[in-house]
Amino acid sequence: MDLKKITDPAFLKHMTTSELNELAQEIRSFLVSSISKTGGHLASNLGVVELTIALHYVFDSPKDKIFFDVGHQCYTHKILTGRAAEFDSLRQYGGISGFQKRSESVHDVWEAGHSSTSLSAALGMAVSRDLLSNEYYHVVPVIGDGALTSGMALEALNSIGSEKRNIIIVFNDNNMSISRNVGAMTKSFARLRSAKGYNSFKRNMKEALGKNEFGKVMYNGMKSVKDAVKETVIDRGIFGEFNLEYLGPVDGHNFHDLIRALTVAKEHNGPVVVHVITQKGHGYTPCEKDRDGFWHGVGAFDIETGRPLHETAPGYNTWSGTIADAVQDLAEHDRRIAAITPAMIMGSSLDHFFARFPERSFDCGIAEEHAATFAAGLAISGMRPFLSVYSSFLQRSYDQINHDICRMDLPVLIGIDRAGLVGADGATHHGVFDIGFLRPLPNMIISQPKDADEARNLVYTAMSQPHPFAIRYPRGEVKQGSRDFELLQVGSWTVFKPEHEPKAAILAYGPDVDRILDKIQVNELPFALINCRFLKPIDTDCVRKLAESGLPVYVYEPDMLEGGLGTAILEYCNDNGLQIKLHRYGIGDHYVPHGSDAQLRRAEKIDLNTLFEDILAETEHI
Amino acid sequence: MDLKKITDPAFLKHMTTSELNELAQEIRSFLVSSISKTGGHLASNLGVVELTIALHYVFDSPKDKIFFDVGHQCYTHKILTGRAAEFDSLRQYGGISGFQKRSESVHDVWEAGHSSTSLSAALGMAVSRDLLSNEYYHVVPVIGDGALTSGMALEALNSIGSEKRNIIIVFNDNNMSISRNVGAMTKSFARLRSAKGYNSFKRNMKEALGKNEFGKVMYNGMKSVKDAVKETVIDRGIFGEFNLEYLGPVDGHNFHDLIRALTVAKEHNGPVVVHVITQKGHGYTPCEKDRDGFWHGVGAFDIETGRPLHETAPGYNTWSGTIADAVQDLAEHDRRIAAITPAMIMGSSLDHFFARFPERSFDCGIAEEHAATFAAGLAISGMRPFLSVYSSFLQRSYDQINHDICRMDLPVLIGIDRAGLVGADGATHHGVFDIGFLRPLPNMIISQPKDADEARNLVYTAMSQPHPFAIRYPRGEVKQGSRDFELLQVGSWTVFKPEHEPKAAILAYGPDVDRILDKIQVNELPFALINCRFLKPIDTDCVRKLAESGLPVYVYEPDMLEGGLGTAILEYCNDNGLQIKLHRYGIGDHYVPHGSDAQLRRAEKIDLNTLFEDILAETEHI
Repeated sequence: MDLKKITDPAFLKHMTTSELNELAQEIRSFLVSSISKTGGHLASNLGVVELTIALHYVFDSPKDKIFFDVGHQCYTHKILTGRAAEFDSLRQYGGISGFQKRSESVHDVWEAGHSSTSLSAALGMAVSRDLLSNEYYHVVPVIGDGALTSGMALEALNSIGSEKRNIIIVFNDNNMSISRNVGAMTKSFARLRSAKGYNSFKRNMKEALGKNEFGKVMYNGMKSVKDAVKETVIDRGIFGEFNLEYLGPVDGHNFHDLIRALTVAKEHNGPVVVHVITQKGHGYTPCEKDRDGFWHGVGAFDIETGRPLHETAPGYNTWSGTIADAVQDLAEHDRRIAAITPAMIMGSSLDHFFARFPERSFDCGIAEEHAATFAAGLAISGMRPFLSVYSSFLQRSYDQINHDICRMDLPVLIGIDRAGLVGADGATHHGVFDIGFLRPLPNMIISQPKDADEARNLVYTAMSQPHPFAIRYPRGEVKQGSRDFELLQVGSWTVFKPEHEPKAAILAYGPDVDRILDKIQVNELPFALINCRFLKPIDTDCVRKLAESGLPVYVYEPDMLEGGLGTAILEYCNDNGLQIKLHRYGIGDHYVPHGSDAQLRRAEKIDLNTLFEDILAETEHI
Repeated sequence: MDLKKITDPAFLKHMTTSELNELAQEIRSFLVSSISKTGGHLASNLGVVELTIALHYVFDSPKDKIFFDVGHQCYTHKILTGRAAEFDSLRQYGGISGFQKRSESVHDVWEAGHSSTSLSAALGMAVSRDLLSNEYYHVVPVIGDGALTSGMALEALNSIGSEKRNIIIVFNDNNMSISRNVGAMTKSFARLRSAKGYNSFKRNMKEALGKNEFGKVMYNGMKSVKDAVKETVIDRGIFGEFNLEYLGPVDGHNFHDLIRALTVAKEHNGPVVVHVITQKGHGYTPCEKDRDGFWHGVGAFDIETGRPLHETAPGYNTWSGTIADAVQDLAEHDRRIAAITPAMIMGSSLDHFFARFPERSFDCGIAEEHAATFAAGLAISGMRPFLSVYSSFLQRSYDQINHDICRMDLPVLIGIDRAGLVGADGATHHGVFDIGFLRPLPNMIISQPKDADEARNLVYTAMSQPHPFAIRYPRGEVKQGSRDFELLQVGSWTVFKPEHEPKAAILAYGPDVDRILDKIQVNELPFALINCRFLKPIDTDCVRKLAESGLPVYVYEPDMLEGGLGTAILEYCNDNGLQIKLHRYGIGDHYVPHGSDAQLRRAEKIDLNTLFEDILAETEHI
């Protein structure tokens, strides 16, 4: 069928199993083909094609609330709710999001991007339904096994198990986080997966539901359904500890089993977990074999070979890799150094470190809170942990960084990966808040290197001093330089002076420094450039000279303006009797959508062209 | 014995059971007597007297790392490690802390204040020991059942269960959080408590350990100890799901059982949970009966009657109660309004609301992450949730407020209780960061009322508009006013002008506004006073007029300076071509210790006397 003609998932209800299977294959081909051009989340979406179809077959969206934890696995949902035609624009500026978005469709009833929020949201919806709604609706969150090991999901289970509202938790178990799953709960899940429940579930269902035509299930009243649920419970695993009913495991690629299980769950009274076993990347061989998470989120790729179209140029490495290499080089001679990641070994390029120093490598799973305090526990007893977390996910560790790491002034090196605008993932993933939330924390040092050499030097400096130390770095790649290390003075900035008397000063940090320097040098512009490689403490000598120079000052800070670098300068100048006027270029008081870095900077009026046009216009008369 | 002469816990090792029991009674009397004068955490400390003694009997502190989750139950530990003589100064400025403090004693190996951090810390210490240390030591975190339901503790269990390091988790189960425990896990714990394990544990121990003199346990080699552990496992409950060995339950007030269990655990290979049943408030009748958490943290009280020495004056109510009353009054006519608290029903004065509207009242337990996203789930489906959280604990919800509530622009009313300096609880509890971390969040409105009327009006205003809305309010009490409601203009400040031409302007928020106004009026000072009741958005008209007036401007903001009210004004003025110089009075870039509000303000040089002396000195010549 023509997927682009779908407008509403109701058409599914009239389809036979073989038609559903055919549809699943069409969707799968469409996904591989479409994502091979635009990039996006592939493996997780291929895993839930049948599950998503079955959900829309059994439930009535948008009346019933079907939503996906994180949301990166909602592509089939988007196709079934009328958005196939827009997949050319997936994750592109102005195009459809890679996550659920309420503005896109009435079928998107919740939004996320960060993991493990769906269960708390589901309880909220179920309570609202029971207290306010005139119409009954089902609340059906779909959550993966990786997301379920995060603390807030477990907190939610604890509440759901005592609130006893009708919620159908679809537990999408592919035995993977982004990469291999870790932690003790994986063993608990594995026991459930291999339990006899599966076959006995199928047999019991058959008896309980009769032998009617598929899809026209007749129940012998609620009682037998309840019995059916009860009988299928062999081992409820951790769900039993949270007082939840459990159904499964169910083959997530078998429509018969899926539809029957979901239909039983639909009639169940109280919260119930439907355990669905899916295969990440199902149906596309390169994805199926992946155990490292390479196929979790991908750029454009060649369908035949599975090869990415973009490859890192020789002499370049990712920022993540540059930092990880530096940490690894130091770890060769310092056995106190350990690395911690919350489920981002590949994303944060820690695979080499993990291979080289397995005993000093810790993947905590999606558990940013624990990861940060675990780092504090290592540091307080003599280790020098490197805690690598994406900026946006570091938000989950705010209290632990404040209460544990900074308050006890412990030498944890926090690698803030994916800092700044991240592009296609959009509002939930932009790493633009960390300067604002870390800067008011006492004892915290915050830095960002302009290039690979400075990145290594910052890592070295961090490991040579006794305080919490954050190094932020963006997505993308950077030209590699020296393998040396040099100690930097904490809080020092560097100045690039033009040949002649400067007419303006530009302050920047990170890789924008060299981009701006290029523009200045190529065009022989009379601008001084300051590399503000420390966001805290700031270089107060430099600020003082700047204020006293009377030069127009442009602060280029492509993160949230409130609480950022410019703010730090304003605070310092105010408190120290210095007059300064800053032209601040950063993100205003709003969330930034998805799109390419260049598009987003243009939209936010923080692209370098705008900056230079403004400076030239304003300094012309000087 | 004279508790004040104790210098080191090693003396315990030579004591008999009856001597230990006698000591426990002495400590208990000392605690009741001492806390009745100074105030402090009573019930939790009375519950762990025997447990703490047994820990120091079995383990060798400070070589072995014994530490308490949260830490408010460490008083017996402080007494046994030589600090009884300092209990007169407990929680007072310059005196000993109510929590563990590394600066106080080598026996304090970890610090907290917020709950549920101990397990992550323990894993860090155990890893450090195994990788770095030349000497073996035991790692013994003590964690309560309330703290164990928080997400980060469960994340830690997930890691501990897969890391398989030697950690002895002492699970102090009193079936209470601060108040009654909630959530599905309480049922799981209850099953464990009532399991046959207890008696069978005792019998097995007897056999395995022989019939030697108490405390001189002889083992038949490691094997039998392991067997003993294995045999005692009847139901490992949720700990089994995390792949942890389990010992217990053990009577937490019986030295025989405690010492035997801890001794077995000490020899165990791998992580093990020792389940200890204690009674909160044990041995002091008023405490024992308490199910609401009244005796969790107390002020000075009368030992005979249990009556607090300080009682709320007629016509006064707590700030928490004032806000809760306003929410409740609105809820009478608006069935969309619900109240959520993470285990702080009494602390946040929500007991009346919970009694009046049980079906709209939600105690999530210590689960600030879930609580915030649960609120988002309610709001997205039509409810108007009031989420009441202490400022310092709200730090745990930072990501959920950002990613869920603010990004989706949902109308959650966040009651930020205990905002500002909180006094005796100290550095971990001061609610001084929230303005800084909330202000950069788009869509967020932040306010603080100066008095009870304004508090009600802010609640009413919040419930009448569609955005996330935070109202912060301090510890302590406030004079009650009208029962009316009046809509306020979001972002509006009010100005109190002096009779004659003002020589300076003072900006303040919260109850300090009226304190400052009093001083101005009593002394007939020529100062304008501005009530900055909205911290975001700020009143830009007012700021503009202020800048244009050329008056000296004093901003009184007894929270962290970085990112606070003054910062917001500096940012606005800078970006809008206004020149302003602020004299900022707030907390500098450091953590503030415990002490009375007055003492702390003096120490921070933000007391009103300093403020007025400064203004008078500086404006004298005008």
